[in-house]
Amino acid sequence: MTPVEELLARRRIEDTLIAYCNSLDRMDLEAIGQLFTTDCTVSYGPHPDLQTEGRDALVASLARLWRWRRTAHHLCNVTVRFDGPSGAASESRVHAWHEAQDGAEAVLFGTYRDTLVRQGDNWLIHTRQMEMNGSSGGFRVPVPPAFRHPPPDGWTPPTGLDD
Amino acid sequence: MTPVEELLARRRIEDTLIAYCNSLDRMDLEAIGQLFTTDCTVSYGPHPDLQTEGRDALVASLARLWRWRRTAHHLCNVTVRFDGPSGAASESRVHAWHEAQDGAEAVLFGTYRDTLVRQGDNWLIHTRQMEMNGSSGGFRVPVPPAFRHPPPDGWTPPTGLDD
Amino acid sequence: MTPVEELLARRRIEDTLIAYCNSLDRMDLEAIGQLFTTDCTVSYGPHPDLQTEGRDALVASLARLWRWRRTAHHLCNVTVRFDGPSGAASESRVHAWHEAQDGAEAVLFGTYRDTLVRQGDNWLIHTRQMEMNGSSGGFRVPVPPAFRHPPPDGWTPPTGLDD
Repeated sequence: MTPVEELLARRRIEDTLIAYCNSLDRMDLEAIGQLFTTDCTVSYGPHPDLQTEGRDALVASLARLWRWRRTAHHLCNVTVRFDGPSGAASESRVHAWHEAQDGAEAVLFGTYRDTLVRQGDNWLIHTRQMEMNGSSGGFRVPVPPAFRHPPPDGWTPPTGLDD
Repeated sequence: MTPVEELLARRRIEDTLIAYCNSLDRMDLEAIGQLFTTDCTVSYGPHPDLQTEGRDALVASLARLWRWRRTAHHLCNVTVRFDGPSGAASESRVHAWHEAQDGAEAVLFGTYRDTLVRQGDNWLIHTRQMEMNGSSGGFRVPVPPAFRHPPPDGWTPPTGLDD
Repeated sequence: MTPVEELLARRRIEDTLIAYCNSLDRMDLEAIGQLFTTDCTVSYGPHPDLQTEGRDALVASLARLWRWRRTAHHLCNVTVRFDGPSGAASESRVHAWHEAQDGAEAVLFGTYRDTLVRQGDNWLIHTRQMEMNGSSGGFRVPVPPAFRHPPPDGWTPPTGLDD
């Protein structure tokens, strides 16, 4: 790929990731389906309800988001690594805010690990795995934790910074 | 537009949207004015105080942000659709954090729906309409809700995901 | 720089800023070190523990993040100004969420003011200064406040918007 082709492809990939977030907040499930390959494999965690094979199963599964009254999915920290002109791996972060029917809030700071394939001018998500960097409020969906290096043996926290 | 022209224009448009957020947190109202056309139409909601015609009225109106002690406007999910070489429509999302004088917090998860026009190398906001995807804390400004598809008749929430 | 060179360089700079956030959440301190020049000057605030000279001192200093149980650093609002083909100044914003060992949360809405230099294909951070636009929960690290214009004399807040 030329530099311009790579910049364009990266732009298109980010457009796909953004469309997922915006369509989810709008609960436009049909639009979400068009962002994935028909044979996509998606896992938001080990719970059976969080794993799907294929576009139709994914779309049906995401209806679960209607249990929230409102949501806001804000995407950032997008990185892309190309694997030839028609394949890519992407990692991105999402600040996912959810409001339950009773007004209680639940926040997920998550990571999407995706592979994407080019279909014409568009890039579709072929596999997606979600991880959790943090959570807040009433968020209890069992999304698996992202890896974090532990401190070395004998490390002691500094004092005085948080007083 | 060539692919490179489109990438550059998109970059410039995002720079304008970012400058709005940064200048608002800095309360540099003069700088904000320069991001809009002189005849801009801006609506943050149906309340008369939230609607302005023209750059000068917008700048005067945004002085209302001084009622907060601090703010942080973080932009993401930017999408752009070009309408010829000098016009574009953009949709973006903002995580707008506000702190009142007494320390109370108010958060808005909002959508900006903009049209922009090119003036030389810069893209200026010609129309802006804000919508609200979510809110938290003491945020009570009457920004209109973003559209969200309702669940189909008879839909029942899944169980066991949030326990 | 040609437009394409500038777009590519901007992309690489943003990749560096993102890698910092992602590596910090993963506590991969070695990876963080590779994003800075060996002679980097970094200041998160006037406290002696928040200032370092050189890559090694920075890496050693950032071990302090292990006092948190989890963190999420979400980057946005990136702006870049080039200073020739191998130098740039960048400003970006971070939503930095921290969870203490006891589950208490601390949030920083911060600004990174960086200068970067090109080394081969990569852009490394040469100087970094952090400022604070807002904070929430138990965040008490003495990051210096970002500048915000005060209201003009005699300004009075509007009424009725927050009721």
